[in-house]
Amino acid sequence: MQHDNRSPFRRATASALALALAFLAAACASRPLPSWRDGPARAAILDFVARTTDAASADFVPPAERIAVFDNDGTLWAEQPAYFQLFFAVDRVKQLAPQHPEWTTQEPFRSVLAGDLKQALAGGEKAVLALVAASHTGLTTDAFDAAVKEWFATARHPTTGRPFAAMVYEPMRELLAHLRAHGYQTWIVSGGGIDFMRPWTEAVYGIPPQQVIGSSLATRLEARDGVPVLVKTAELGAIDDKDGKPIHIHRHIGRRPIAAFGNSDGDLRMLQWTAAGAGPRLCALVHHTDAEREWAYDRASHVGRLAEALDEGAARGWLVVDMARDWARVFAPADGTAR
Amino acid sequence: MQHDNRSPFRRATASALALALAFLAAACASRPLPSWRDGPARAAILDFVARTTDAASADFVPPAERIAVFDNDGTLWAEQPAYFQLFFAVDRVKQLAPQHPEWTTQEPFRSVLAGDLKQALAGGEKAVLALVAASHTGLTTDAFDAAVKEWFATARHPTTGRPFAAMVYEPMRELLAHLRAHGYQTWIVSGGGIDFMRPWTEAVYGIPPQQVIGSSLATRLEARDGVPVLVKTAELGAIDDKDGKPIHIHRHIGRRPIAAFGNSDGDLRMLQWTAAGAGPRLCALVHHTDAEREWAYDRASHVGRLAEALDEGAARGWLVVDMARDWARVFAPADGTAR
Repeated sequence: MQHDNRSPFRRATASALALALAFLAAACASRPLPSWRDGPARAAILDFVARTTDAASADFVPPAERIAVFDNDGTLWAEQPAYFQLFFAVDRVKQLAPQHPEWTTQEPFRSVLAGDLKQALAGGEKAVLALVAASHTGLTTDAFDAAVKEWFATARHPTTGRPFAAMVYEPMRELLAHLRAHGYQTWIVSGGGIDFMRPWTEAVYGIPPQQVIGSSLATRLEARDGVPVLVKTAELGAIDDKDGKPIHIHRHIGRRPIAAFGNSDGDLRMLQWTAAGAGPRLCALVHHTDAEREWAYDRASHVGRLAEALDEGAARGWLVVDMARDWARVFAPADGTAR
Repeated sequence: MQHDNRSPFRRATASALALALAFLAAACASRPLPSWRDGPARAAILDFVARTTDAASADFVPPAERIAVFDNDGTLWAEQPAYFQLFFAVDRVKQLAPQHPEWTTQEPFRSVLAGDLKQALAGGEKAVLALVAASHTGLTTDAFDAAVKEWFATARHPTTGRPFAAMVYEPMRELLAHLRAHGYQTWIVSGGGIDFMRPWTEAVYGIPPQQVIGSSLATRLEARDGVPVLVKTAELGAIDDKDGKPIHIHRHIGRRPIAAFGNSDGDLRMLQWTAAGAGPRLCALVHHTDAEREWAYDRASHVGRLAEALDEGAARGWLVVDMARDWARVFAPADGTAR
């Protein structure tokens, strides 16, 4: 044992200080939703979770019915200046270009290869579908999974330069974990590609592939060298947006969610579907109000337009999360690790 | 405290007997898969589960990848003399008949209402689709759910007179529970209707709706009195049979199963898909060999035909569960309660 030769007074002060620091650390560590500022949004969420999980509460919900659904683009991670899946498509087109000499003269490929994304997208939905078809079809599901994983590990966001895993909203990641810690199942219900999300949602959000719902291309079963493979075709499977969201929630979950988070008019039907069930409900919109730390947009935006859902949310008392006001920090640590 | 006036010898004997009985009871209670007879099938299953869940084993599989899929008709419950969903359709047609006077002259309805199911089905697939359309479409998903629940609680199997919940194979129910107790997720992948199964799979099999995959009619989102509802249309959604099984496993689970149980050629693709993954695999066929306690059928059967899958299973060493040999009892208790 080492001899402590400090004065009794200094020893006592040091002990008291250590004790105070320990208390403070414990208090900070145990404050739920640490990236959320005190305010109406954080309070409403904590209150809802407490009410629905307290067996003594009139609003108690059995664990099996604790289903919470989340849009992805603009709700769990950013979506500006374009849906991130588009950057994956563009990078794949660049990668595949040597095998497609015709692309040097064909739009939207010509513009993509010239680095002019704006011009490439001038062709509207047709151009986007052409890029998706060229970059997403013909692969086996296993090969596509590997391609997404590789891209996700190396690609960088075009304006922030951060890995895409670091474009995830830390407050939302905390919310997902908080819900799961209280017996909730967390699901993604996104207009994005189901096969594009699944390779990384478990590591980044803690959401396993079977709890991811999204848009898809139809797949076809083939035997290659006697081994069955699923091949992604050019035929549209599901479009998981607007009416598609409740339809696919029914298809995949078969149970009405009691909590739903979205950020755009594409999420309105999902929020209405969630709200229409009996019992306690939490319907929420993430409102992009923070031009400094993220982006500020709603009614006039091309990506993530939020107008009808904002009006209906106001009329029906849905929770509106004001990013500038409610979030103490926006993004996950730059290394993108889940905590 | 009561005085024990028996002789010391009798007291000791009684104690020893009580102890022996307690040991025996504990041994019986803890023997896993109690309705399975000792033999190669039970041994192979227990060995697979032990190997894949022992962290020290070379065959260890992390919990997230422990996905086991099960066909339903003929694998988890009986399917003779016809898929049970057909009896639901028939009962609904009878119930709806007063609103459809035209059915008294229209096949297959005329024969159904006359109680002649055989004649009704003489029209083949077209007749079945007509019965499904008449009995399954136009309802909201909520109304359909309620109709199935009511039917399931009251209907009786046409030849055994038992509730349909008591037509479930007790050994398979034990297997589902054994797998879950070892960190497996159990899924149904059935040619039967997804909306027909979900109302009762949780109570009967312990499988929640989000882990049920099946065939479906497309649904349409409508507003009725300002409330969103999903309406079952006459348009086919998914056909979860043959190639459809791997396709929908990918759609719903997004991860390859490591264990698969089926009983017919409709399950062959699912078994091949499961077998084609790397690492330990358990592919199994339930073989209906017991004409006394259940039904005996395979190659020549109209319902649940098993020929190609049996041949391929033999060639590839898949487990074949021989119902007559391997199961000490076949059906769940007559009250249909999950134990």
